[in-house]
Amino acid sequence: MNKIEHIGIAVNNLNKSVPLYELLLNTSCYKTEIVASEHVNTAFFRTGENKVELLEATSDDSAIARFLEKKGEGIHHIAFAVDDILEEMERLKANGFVLLNEVPKKGADNKMVCFVHPKNTNGVLIELCQEIKWV
Amino acid sequence: MNKIEHIGIAVNNLNKSVPLYELLLNTSCYKTEIVASEHVNTAFFRTGENKVELLEATSDDSAIARFLEKKGEGIHHIAFAVDDILEEMERLKANGFVLLNEVPKKGADNKMVCFVHPKNTNGVLIELCQEIKWV
Repeated sequence: MNKIEHIGIAVNNLNKSVPLYELLLNTSCYKTEIVASEHVNTAFFRTGENKVELLEATSDDSAIARFLEKKGEGIHHIAFAVDDILEEMERLKANGFVLLNEVPKKGADNKMVCFVHPKNTNGVLIELCQEIKWV
Repeated sequence: MNKIEHIGIAVNNLNKSVPLYELLLNTSCYKTEIVASEHVNTAFFRTGENKVELLEATSDDSAIARFLEKKGEGIHHIAFAVDDILEEMERLKANGFVLLNEVPKKGADNKMVCFVHPKNTNGVLIELCQEIKWV
């Protein structure tokens, strides 16, 4: 895995948390994006080569809504950048990790993503992500 | 804040989790270090410019033991690299954030560190860290 691409943080209210994280990280939010398929609204901040992603649920059906109800606001996942998501998914499966989606799916910020089940990773939800390149 | 320096993950048993994270991250643990003052044993992995730190409690008095008891294994904190920790602590205090230590303290991996109270950061425990340079 190449680097931490971003940290995902679940928040109740993006309108309140965006200015808070602008102050905390001392940088402006550079993008907000609704990911309709995941029922989330997202906001991104750059911290050097990494990003912080705030996630707000847009529906009670979203995984973020369930996380907030169960655990409250806080760190939701770590995303690692990979060069070849299919190869990395195969490598992890071969090593006994459980993937939450069998094929990569479209995530926020122009990425194809796959999640690894936290039951095999000491409770940490891990996202693999690969930038989509349009050739 | 310059970049994510590391992600801290609380685990029950470092001996079990180190080989697991070596498989997961596809890289070898490059250092283990006991931080006696914090009652923790730590293990570090490089992921590009970032690191993953696993933390195991060595005493029931440690913050990691209390976290594990309350929340179970999982992501404990995000650490951001800063150039001048004293300046960054002042900036955060002036913006209403609450620091958990008023002066920087010695952390793992040759760093001076300061923690920001999660009550003001949507439940996220944030560590500022600055490399100690010996001149």
